[in-house]
Amino acid sequence: MRIAELSRTSGVPVPSIKYYLRAGLLPPGERTAPNQADYTEKHLHRLKLIRALIEVGGLSIAAVGDLLTSLDARGDNLNEAVGTAIKATLPATTSSDSGFLDEATRLVHRVLEKRGWQEYGPTQVETLISAVETFQRLGQPDIEMIIELYADLVERLVPKEIEWITTRDNTDAVVEAAIIGTFIGGRAFSALRSLGHEAESRKRLPLVRLRGEPAAQSDEPA
Amino acid sequence: MRIAELSRTSGVPVPSIKYYLRAGLLPPGERTAPNQADYTEKHLHRLKLIRALIEVGGLSIAAVGDLLTSLDARGDNLNEAVGTAIKATLPATTSSDSGFLDEATRLVHRVLEKRGWQEYGPTQVETLISAVETFQRLGQPDIEMIIELYADLVERLVPKEIEWITTRDNTDAVVEAAIIGTFIGGRAFSALRSLGHEAESRKRLPLVRLRGEPAAQSDEPA
Repeated sequence: MRIAELSRTSGVPVPSIKYYLRAGLLPPGERTAPNQADYTEKHLHRLKLIRALIEVGGLSIAAVGDLLTSLDARGDNLNEAVGTAIKATLPATTSSDSGFLDEATRLVHRVLEKRGWQEYGPTQVETLISAVETFQRLGQPDIEMIIELYADLVERLVPKEIEWITTRDNTDAVVEAAIIGTFIGGRAFSALRSLGHEAESRKRLPLVRLRGEPAAQSDEPA
Repeated sequence: MRIAELSRTSGVPVPSIKYYLRAGLLPPGERTAPNQADYTEKHLHRLKLIRALIEVGGLSIAAVGDLLTSLDARGDNLNEAVGTAIKATLPATTSSDSGFLDEATRLVHRVLEKRGWQEYGPTQVETLISAVETFQRLGQPDIEMIIELYADLVERLVPKEIEWITTRDNTDAVVEAAIIGTFIGGRAFSALRSLGHEAESRKRLPLVRLRGEPAAQSDEPA
């Protein structure tokens, strides 16, 4: 199909498609004339993936570029690319030297070593340490308990996610499912967690006023 | 303390502090002279929270503003503010009319009704529907199984998180912990999940080459 049809079918404006082509996110079409190229279902599929990662996954174009390069390289550095993309959803942090860095690093290493995860994803480890350091800097209690709780749940979650990912009939589809699961699945999980928080806090704090009810109480968290 | 000291102690540049004051993220100091104000430990604490949400939580200044307004209003609309902030980490989506919206909406309502969560957080529900619709649009299988898996884990997670949040001695601290737990804790969870994925996929696919090893295999996902 021509670029105009690719645009119509995908709902992505032609200038955006041209931008993705220039940025290498979308492989070039087959040239059919000096000023014309032909695009396939594969291009359409890739375009949907790009838009999903940007719009629903919250990734930057640069992060999508890194991920797709890993996907096209058949996943050689996929895990690191995923870590980089997770980190790229955050603004560049100026190292704050809060005095908690060593303690945060030790805490994270304890949690990871217990599970044999210490040799994986340096970018993810860095993100984790920075989250722990932030908890400490903000004076939050029982941080190791919380991180252990998350790690325990992750241990239940990942075998099932990996099983879901690996029921595909080719390597490309497995790698793509890993990317979609991480970023789109991650969004779904956050939304559910937030809904769960609301439900649970209303159950525990029944005096809290519900949306639309008159303000009978004013000293309780929602 | 003066603004210069607030800046030194927090590591936040004076122009940023002035910007947060103008934007209402930081309450004004006590005026001590026409051109001078005095700031307290409370301002320092608030400033650390603002920076943490922006740098580690990945929130925009506008989203932080919404959250802090809810915090200052003692949590009246906190859950909705949290939903809005989760959504604000994503770019505005142009509704794509993929034909999957009805199906995604039904799936989400089934999962939520089973847990009695259907009346909560409309923004979170919208985010969840959009994630499900994206899975469908990208041709992913067994979506309801994945969303059920997430919801099951969330049911295990939230009572413990809410318990952690509510062990504070005043309402302000509870509301603040809810915000920190959602956004900074959410980052920690994502990083752990990604590390877990890497560990599990290497365990299941032992032929995959490890970082630094020579490229003996090239047809396997990492």
